[in-house]
Amino acid sequence: MSDRDGRKRVIIERVSPEIDCGQYAAKITVGERLTVEADVFCDGHDRPWAALLFRREGSPRWSEIPMQPLPNDRWRASFLVTDQGRYEYSVLAGVDHFGTWHHDLRKKIHAGVDVAVDLLIGGRLIQRAAERAERDGGGDGRQLAEWAALLGSDAPVAEKLSLIQDGRLLSLLACHRDRDLALRYPRVLRLIAERERARFSTWYELFPRSTSGDESRHGTFRDVERRLPAIAGMGFDILYLPPIHPIGLTKRKGKNNALVAGPDDPGSPWAIGGPEGGHTAVHPQLGTLADFRRLVRAAADLGIEIALDIALQCSPDHPYVRDHPEWFTRRPDGAVQYAENPPKKYEDIYPFNFECDDWRALWAEILGIFQHWIEHGVRVFRVDNPHTKPFRMWDWLIEQIHRDHPDVLFLAEAFTRPKVMYRLAKGGFTQSYTYFAWRNEKWDLTEYLRELTATEARDFFRPNFWPNTPDILTEFLQRNGRAGFLQRLVLAATLAASYGIYGPAFELMESTPRHEGSEEYLNSEKYQLRAWDLDRPDSLSDFIARVNQIRRENPALQSNRNLAFHTINNDQLIAYSKATEDRANVILCVVNLDPHHTQSGWIALDLNALGLAGDQPFQVHDLLSNARFQWTGARTFVELDPRVVPAHIFRIRRRLRSERDFDYYL
Amino acid sequence: MSDRDGRKRVIIERVSPEIDCGQYAAKITVGERLTVEADVFCDGHDRPWAALLFRREGSPRWSEIPMQPLPNDRWRASFLVTDQGRYEYSVLAGVDHFGTWHHDLRKKIHAGVDVAVDLLIGGRLIQRAAERAERDGGGDGRQLAEWAALLGSDAPVAEKLSLIQDGRLLSLLACHRDRDLALRYPRVLRLIAERERARFSTWYELFPRSTSGDESRHGTFRDVERRLPAIAGMGFDILYLPPIHPIGLTKRKGKNNALVAGPDDPGSPWAIGGPEGGHTAVHPQLGTLADFRRLVRAAADLGIEIALDIALQCSPDHPYVRDHPEWFTRRPDGAVQYAENPPKKYEDIYPFNFECDDWRALWAEILGIFQHWIEHGVRVFRVDNPHTKPFRMWDWLIEQIHRDHPDVLFLAEAFTRPKVMYRLAKGGFTQSYTYFAWRNEKWDLTEYLRELTATEARDFFRPNFWPNTPDILTEFLQRNGRAGFLQRLVLAATLAASYGIYGPAFELMESTPRHEGSEEYLNSEKYQLRAWDLDRPDSLSDFIARVNQIRRENPALQSNRNLAFHTINNDQLIAYSKATEDRANVILCVVNLDPHHTQSGWIALDLNALGLAGDQPFQVHDLLSNARFQWTGARTFVELDPRVVPAHIFRIRRRLRSERDFDYYL
Repeated sequence: MSDRDGRKRVIIERVSPEIDCGQYAAKITVGERLTVEADVFCDGHDRPWAALLFRREGSPRWSEIPMQPLPNDRWRASFLVTDQGRYEYSVLAGVDHFGTWHHDLRKKIHAGVDVAVDLLIGGRLIQRAAERAERDGGGDGRQLAEWAALLGSDAPVAEKLSLIQDGRLLSLLACHRDRDLALRYPRVLRLIAERERARFSTWYELFPRSTSGDESRHGTFRDVERRLPAIAGMGFDILYLPPIHPIGLTKRKGKNNALVAGPDDPGSPWAIGGPEGGHTAVHPQLGTLADFRRLVRAAADLGIEIALDIALQCSPDHPYVRDHPEWFTRRPDGAVQYAENPPKKYEDIYPFNFECDDWRALWAEILGIFQHWIEHGVRVFRVDNPHTKPFRMWDWLIEQIHRDHPDVLFLAEAFTRPKVMYRLAKGGFTQSYTYFAWRNEKWDLTEYLRELTATEARDFFRPNFWPNTPDILTEFLQRNGRAGFLQRLVLAATLAASYGIYGPAFELMESTPRHEGSEEYLNSEKYQLRAWDLDRPDSLSDFIARVNQIRRENPALQSNRNLAFHTINNDQLIAYSKATEDRANVILCVVNLDPHHTQSGWIALDLNALGLAGDQPFQVHDLLSNARFQWTGARTFVELDPRVVPAHIFRIRRRLRSERDFDYYL
Repeated sequence: MSDRDGRKRVIIERVSPEIDCGQYAAKITVGERLTVEADVFCDGHDRPWAALLFRREGSPRWSEIPMQPLPNDRWRASFLVTDQGRYEYSVLAGVDHFGTWHHDLRKKIHAGVDVAVDLLIGGRLIQRAAERAERDGGGDGRQLAEWAALLGSDAPVAEKLSLIQDGRLLSLLACHRDRDLALRYPRVLRLIAERERARFSTWYELFPRSTSGDESRHGTFRDVERRLPAIAGMGFDILYLPPIHPIGLTKRKGKNNALVAGPDDPGSPWAIGGPEGGHTAVHPQLGTLADFRRLVRAAADLGIEIALDIALQCSPDHPYVRDHPEWFTRRPDGAVQYAENPPKKYEDIYPFNFECDDWRALWAEILGIFQHWIEHGVRVFRVDNPHTKPFRMWDWLIEQIHRDHPDVLFLAEAFTRPKVMYRLAKGGFTQSYTYFAWRNEKWDLTEYLRELTATEARDFFRPNFWPNTPDILTEFLQRNGRAGFLQRLVLAATLAASYGIYGPAFELMESTPRHEGSEEYLNSEKYQLRAWDLDRPDSLSDFIARVNQIRRENPALQSNRNLAFHTINNDQLIAYSKATEDRANVILCVVNLDPHHTQSGWIALDLNALGLAGDQPFQVHDLLSNARFQWTGARTFVELDPRVVPAHIFRIRRRLRSERDFDYYL
């Protein structure tokens, strides 16, 4: 009969997290607790018990954690995830006959009702637990049987009443619950635990070929190596490089995306493949594979990981085009089908035909590309336009790679429709690009962040906020000068646990578009070499270093949980806080969204989110300016001049010392 | 390979309605359309196609309805449910290669790009459809092949462009889509279609024993028969009787729930069972089983169905107690365990032990009780406290009964915690009691109705609103006189498609509680016979008849879909509307929630919900007072004096005639 036994009366519903009926795994990082909730109830006024089950995938044994009741038939338990890898979890529940009896008994005693018969009933329940314990082996059975006998004896009622409150009895009963009529939630849910950097990471993107300091000399991996100390000094821990492979010559694009390249134009790194090789080769002008490995090691010594950009597309000169014509679509005119976004044509790029008969070989080859770079020390991939390749390929590929390398992280570079972006994340991408670049007003920042941090999206979608990328120079950055850059940096770095900038364009406040109304950079590095004056006195590098240091030193900023917005009576000011679960670290940010004028207003702090009591004075310490203020209560005045710095990043320091805290007071 | 074929690129997610991952069936009634939505998308910029699949349960063949795209990758289709019974539905989708090509082509033509090669590609796509059509049989293959040849020929481009816009081509292509790479949503979802009265019903409850007109004479089914015309005249279509079975003598309760009954006290009808029989017997003082059948027939002649109350509990004198001791719990003192809600004891009632070893026989016996009354003509059951019996028994029992009698309706009398009430509804109860009786303020009425009509609850939970029951004389009715009764009646009758009253206590405005702070009636019919003066001039029966006539004549009030609230700047006034899907019938209600004072305010009408344009004058016709008003635009003033009538029930009549509507205008 098992689950069809009609005596199994408990109901388990709405387990969370559960993504699409358990089709996809929830995500977590090592060191975090997974909190699982469920609706658990039974008919009548019987009380249920419930336990969270969890185990490493493949383990034969479930661990069991008692769930605690919340209001409205909701139950909760959590467990600390200590290791990378895949876990399973579910919920087990049953009717708590002893708990129900115990609860009723207290009500009867309180009402002065005679409980002699009830104590006999309790004795029976304990006797049954004794029998179960006997069956389980161990010494508990004997102890429980003794207690059952006491309740059944003519011992004084007071003695019996004191027994049934005995913690040892209650613990033993919990150990030997009646599991015959327990039920398990019908689905086993999955969890992927990744390393900490999946949650908290600080990205810097640069074009290696623009690192020589000389526009006429192609930069190399050695040049990048020389830049590492400065990048580490700014506080970045992932250095992401656009594709490092040979670049095609056929239909190569010129400066500013000109249709015809000049003789010295280096072409777009995303037009991958030439006679020197394809996705597993290194562009000769950057150096050798050995140079690349050296760069990976040098970066690691500074706490930086190298992230590679995997763009699954080919220049017409890619070896695949010759060796695997079956992977491409051929047009009726005999040409290979190039990429299109009608009416735009990208004739320097051939997409794969993922509906080709040979799709298995194609998938295997693509898996091989990732494995190749993993063998060469790469553990972080930024995947270019993953939404133009089949979702189910990513599901499969990421699972394949995680089987041997659970430490590999994948960033999905998809700027597309919301459900498509979410589906990629569900399929296993560690982090995802977002719409942050275009969220500039208080209402839309608030709404978007609520969606990302307070809906079920937070269990599978880890946002990575980029104020700019080589493709995205927003109108906001074009128009709002230094204050605009500072503001966007602070928002990205404090709203999201992972963020990144495309530099040196960002710290040097590059802001000229190719033309009015375009989000493309003028003289974009995508099509030409650039030399950057990194020592410019107006560089934002020191400010960035300070912000990243604040992120490192304050665990509240290393997670997107516990983000709370605080009301402020000026639409140009936004206030929000993040806090660790124990409220030991609490950060409150106030940002002036107007890059041109001083703005001021009154905040109504959500003291609960800050872990503060209403009447308690507290110190706020601005980690940017190092100024300290003493505040009391929820209402406080703030003013920010964007020409100085458009943001406060306050650390809240509770519990100021008073005279009573000193020894001599006593 | 089937669904694991990597070339299947479409994604289908978030199908609605889907209750608990398809574990429970959604509900509908005959004559309604089931609207199904799903997120459907594929990778890249390819466009999907999607179809809703549905069939009668057990049918081998799916019907297929094309889904239409909505914004944000959502797709929708609906089908009309014409028959009672159980249905299944799901979603099928694939990549629409021709549609994608067609869409791209238009963009290219618009941009003036040469499309010669594209037309050849289109020819190939049509040729492939031709081959599929050939395989399917029929003549479509030949026609498609001809068209494919035309696109491949050197016919003038204009001719080709006109072909690809030809509706016949597009229809044939839709008929012969590429299904090899289509995918079906992984779950088959279920739908229960019930008859119309499941959705729209008007209930009247009375105690048959109090229908003789003489407190000293036990009423009979014949007496009830005589009352039928008046009940039908008030517009009720379900007459629900408390349990009609023999009543126990042991521990019988006296008047006003006295612990000891007097010699003439009739006892509570819920203390079921005596020497004359149990749940399948008729209390001799009410008449015979033949009398009961006669009542059922007489009621049917007036359009009224008799609803029986099934209370699964036994008096100590019930034959089950003797014949099936194994179905009850025995206490250590040898007594059978009576019902308790500690510290309260209900010694006149023995509950079943649903965890007994003989649970199968117990379930079968309970099923037999329902079947017995079905055989005697009953098609509506009000189940007493279903939440104190196992949920899974109801799941099973309702399915068993619906197998042979899909017309049987079940009303769940559960006033308990929200998730428990919802679980009963998911398990198959047709209608459910609600918290309506205790929702008296604008904010809580609004919030509760939004929960019932605008969350997924609406797909499985059909509310039945009762302003009073024999157990519930609310504080509100106790304190607020005639206006209070009128107001609660209008709210119940217009907010919910199904509602009921316990009469004649309701229409005679019985409002005295057993004691201050109690919701029990003084001299409750639960424990004694009553005689009612039905001809009292202040009876609300005429008003009730009017309201029920309005409900019958206005289909908008016969469904809970399309309920909309309208803003009104006075918290004592509530305004809401209901409309049929085609907006042919639109009802706007305004109710004064203050039973003591005239209240007035300005409504800001949601014109869209009313199917009105902003500048169009329209007539509102108060169906209670028969007054007519002409309004224009969204803002309008209302005033209601509760001493006259505390509500407007307006029918909105759009499109007033103007001079242009008359022949002589032209």
